[in-house]
Amino acid sequence: MEQFNLWIGDIVTIFGTFSFAVSGAFAAMQKRLDAFGVLIVAFVTAVGGGTLRDLLLGITPVFWLKNANYSLLIIITAIVAMVFWKRIKTLKITLFLFDSLGLGFFTVVGLQKGLAYDLSPGICVALGTVTGCFGGITRDILLNNIPLIFRKEIYATACIIGGLVYLLLSALGINEALVKFIAVAVVFAIRIVAVKYKLSLPRIY
Amino acid sequence: MEQFNLWIGDIVTIFGTFSFAVSGAFAAMQKRLDAFGVLIVAFVTAVGGGTLRDLLLGITPVFWLKNANYSLLIIITAIVAMVFWKRIKTLKITLFLFDSLGLGFFTVVGLQKGLAYDLSPGICVALGTVTGCFGGITRDILLNNIPLIFRKEIYATACIIGGLVYLLLSALGINEALVKFIAVAVVFAIRIVAVKYKLSLPRIY
Amino acid sequence: MEQFNLWIGDIVTIFGTFSFAVSGAFAAMQKRLDAFGVLIVAFVTAVGGGTLRDLLLGITPVFWLKNANYSLLIIITAIVAMVFWKRIKTLKITLFLFDSLGLGFFTVVGLQKGLAYDLSPGICVALGTVTGCFGGITRDILLNNIPLIFRKEIYATACIIGGLVYLLLSALGINEALVKFIAVAVVFAIRIVAVKYKLSLPRIY
Repeated sequence: MEQFNLWIGDIVTIFGTFSFAVSGAFAAMQKRLDAFGVLIVAFVTAVGGGTLRDLLLGITPVFWLKNANYSLLIIITAIVAMVFWKRIKTLKITLFLFDSLGLGFFTVVGLQKGLAYDLSPGICVALGTVTGCFGGITRDILLNNIPLIFRKEIYATACIIGGLVYLLLSALGINEALVKFIAVAVVFAIRIVAVKYKLSLPRIY
Repeated sequence: MEQFNLWIGDIVTIFGTFSFAVSGAFAAMQKRLDAFGVLIVAFVTAVGGGTLRDLLLGITPVFWLKNANYSLLIIITAIVAMVFWKRIKTLKITLFLFDSLGLGFFTVVGLQKGLAYDLSPGICVALGTVTGCFGGITRDILLNNIPLIFRKEIYATACIIGGLVYLLLSALGINEALVKFIAVAVVFAIRIVAVKYKLSLPRIY
Repeated sequence: MEQFNLWIGDIVTIFGTFSFAVSGAFAAMQKRLDAFGVLIVAFVTAVGGGTLRDLLLGITPVFWLKNANYSLLIIITAIVAMVFWKRIKTLKITLFLFDSLGLGFFTVVGLQKGLAYDLSPGICVALGTVTGCFGGITRDILLNNIPLIFRKEIYATACIIGGLVYLLLSALGINEALVKFIAVAVVFAIRIVAVKYKLSLPRIY
């Protein structure tokens, strides 16, 4: 029953975990880490945001300690990524693609958890942004890259806009599953457009 | 009532949040980040120390999740910092000034929270030091700077001395508000003097 | 009684705290930090893994806040390391030696705590690996080194193998103290051999 609930209730978490595990594995393979290095970076990227969110809310033991399926999913994802590396390593967009997907999924998950804990809507958007961005930041710091969040293209803004869209559509009474889908799509789309057209925020100072 | 209590009870936290938000915004603008990058760094610097302290003590959900006024204060501070950037960017001392203020404020807050949890006095000084230093360390790591704490000038020692002064004056029965003021001033003064006269600890090895 | 229990029950934690404090102090002295910088790095390396483990499990306030003996041990260790620096600084192996010891000790401690919380065995191995590796990662990031975990020689794999050995020998009903000793020795030996013979995992991609 718990596994049924896991699959039905946390499908966005699963997609987010998978997406960030791929982005972490890719970033690690670009740095030519050994098999376990790839696994570790994939793991940290995939669970980092959710772990921080649960620590801030006080939900312990954290989800991936209580349910071994998350670790299993990450291990399998990392192995598959390593197996297919040669075929996809030339696709430069892959890391951005999966990072943007994970960003969208986890922003929604983080925001929803905040709402479940009766936090004010603005704070829920902040929590979703933190949950979405933290895994990627940790991945980049571990690999000694400039965190994507600090590059020129829009990053956290995508999460904030996606979060606000979620709140607006929810307030309009739209079906929850559809609201989640649209919010994720908004974050993803903003990122893809921003990277493709090199859109950045003005510095305003 | 809660907001009244917030302003009366946590005035040192508010000043510390403001000071570190300014230091974070400044450091981010020196790295020419976009508007959201500045906001994010300001936020992480301002809430980082208190968040770590509350996680270590087990006080969850953390303060800035429960009270949206902190985030509001940081957003306003970051915007004001960006508006005034051109006028103050040549004042090199500004980052050190506000970082040293934040250091003092948060050392006192961290120490007080430890005392409220009946931790031994020495550990309270350590907790105050951790609370004071962690925001700045995170700011520096995010921006790929050598953390101020590891530069030549006295940093953590200022927190430790301030903490010991707090304990001493409290033991002498001096009024709590005055003790807090003096302890903050001690940390701040040690930092300013250390940076101005390039004072550093001996390496003793 | 509590201190008696501490020494009897947590002897592996004490050895691990000491070992990582030495490795942290050494790494800091190699970067020529001042006395407090050495102390801070020693402290972060020594308590980092256990702190993360306890935060993930939800055991707060964390151990070094509740029991000042850990901080005392670390301070004394750091001072002794600084006193003997001139005599041992030419021994390049010292940092690896103490880091590998700490790795072994904390892997076992982390795994045992997971078992005490009824986590699945595989997750306990992961928790032990996280507990063992995190202190060293933080030490390396603070000092701007490439984390040992990402260098060529086997690192996290040693923890995983040691953890699996622990589970296997426990399942065979072997005496707990002996199982702990063997598991620690396995992690330590794998690291020493890997560094000496420059053994690394294949990249398999």
